[in-house]
Amino acid sequence: MKLLEDRILKDGVVLSGGVLKVDGFLNHRLDVPFFDELAKEFYRLFGNSDVNKILTVEASGIGLACITALRFGCPVVFAKKSRTKNVTGGIYTAPVFSFTHGEPYEIMVSEAYLGPSDRVLIIDDFLAMGEALRGLRKICEDAGAYVVGAGIAIEKAFQPGGKSLRESGLRVESLARIESMDPEKGITFCR
Amino acid sequence: MKLLEDRILKDGVVLSGGVLKVDGFLNHRLDVPFFDELAKEFYRLFGNSDVNKILTVEASGIGLACITALRFGCPVVFAKKSRTKNVTGGIYTAPVFSFTHGEPYEIMVSEAYLGPSDRVLIIDDFLAMGEALRGLRKICEDAGAYVVGAGIAIEKAFQPGGKSLRESGLRVESLARIESMDPEKGITFCR
Repeated sequence: MKLLEDRILKDGVVLSGGVLKVDGFLNHRLDVPFFDELAKEFYRLFGNSDVNKILTVEASGIGLACITALRFGCPVVFAKKSRTKNVTGGIYTAPVFSFTHGEPYEIMVSEAYLGPSDRVLIIDDFLAMGEALRGLRKICEDAGAYVVGAGIAIEKAFQPGGKSLRESGLRVESLARIESMDPEKGITFCR
Repeated sequence: MKLLEDRILKDGVVLSGGVLKVDGFLNHRLDVPFFDELAKEFYRLFGNSDVNKILTVEASGIGLACITALRFGCPVVFAKKSRTKNVTGGIYTAPVFSFTHGEPYEIMVSEAYLGPSDRVLIIDDFLAMGEALRGLRKICEDAGAYVVGAGIAIEKAFQPGGKSLRESGLRVESLARIESMDPEKGITFCR
């Protein structure tokens, strides 16, 4: 999606260690009117798939998931990273290793909010190693929910997550796919 | 707001220890089309206040903040609870005690995304002791941003946060204000 690629080139900063800093519009300051353009594109891609639930993981996926859900007219469920007093009853869980934080964690969704009648679109801001996506997919499988596909803003296509998930049969649609990036040479997108 | 009060009566569950479980529509499963009705009401209340930024704190405030921001046509900044590799440069911080988690934590906003030109509407799902709101307000003050007010979905008016913040001069608009609640006697709203 050219709009997103242009925005990444304009506002993204490539740091060392494979980190792309896009917190100016995607995951700290959230450019919500811009999110709505991404949501339109997700709707164009998945609007015929009878999606009735959008699933994401806290925290940075929630905003994009909600703006997308408004287009689809459906609710969002976000997987939580820690159990609070407000989570009672049965839960689905999956282990996820965070390469951003350098440690594993567990994500969880209450059994009450995901089930066999759900046709789920997974939305997330980033896809790199695919850990979060794999965890969310496992939770859907455990719940008996059908995963229509995954809509991702930015895929680091030089990392193996997207390839591996597509090979396993998941429909993954990434609005910008980065082929390579380097603090000095800049960013190249997949063509 | 009757729509929200009715929803709380229908789907909310009062647990012991002053916990109101509304994760069926507000903070785990997010009823996004319903959020848009709340957002309309926030826009009715604050639409003439030249809001150009919405501030919230991760994670459960983000969805409502984003749907509200779409009405206002402005970005969201969400305060983070932990520093990741993606946060570089100067930050504003504030200490917050979480009564939900039973421990203190620090919230932070990058200096790049809040400043003197901002007219900020703070959005959050809950107001009880007012800790998060107080922290977000401190961050705005440190950044030189003007706080137009705070838009809250559910205020536990039997706890002191709202009263204390209003007395300190903050405009706080809560769409549902709970006067009392009890697992057996149910919920009473302020009139």
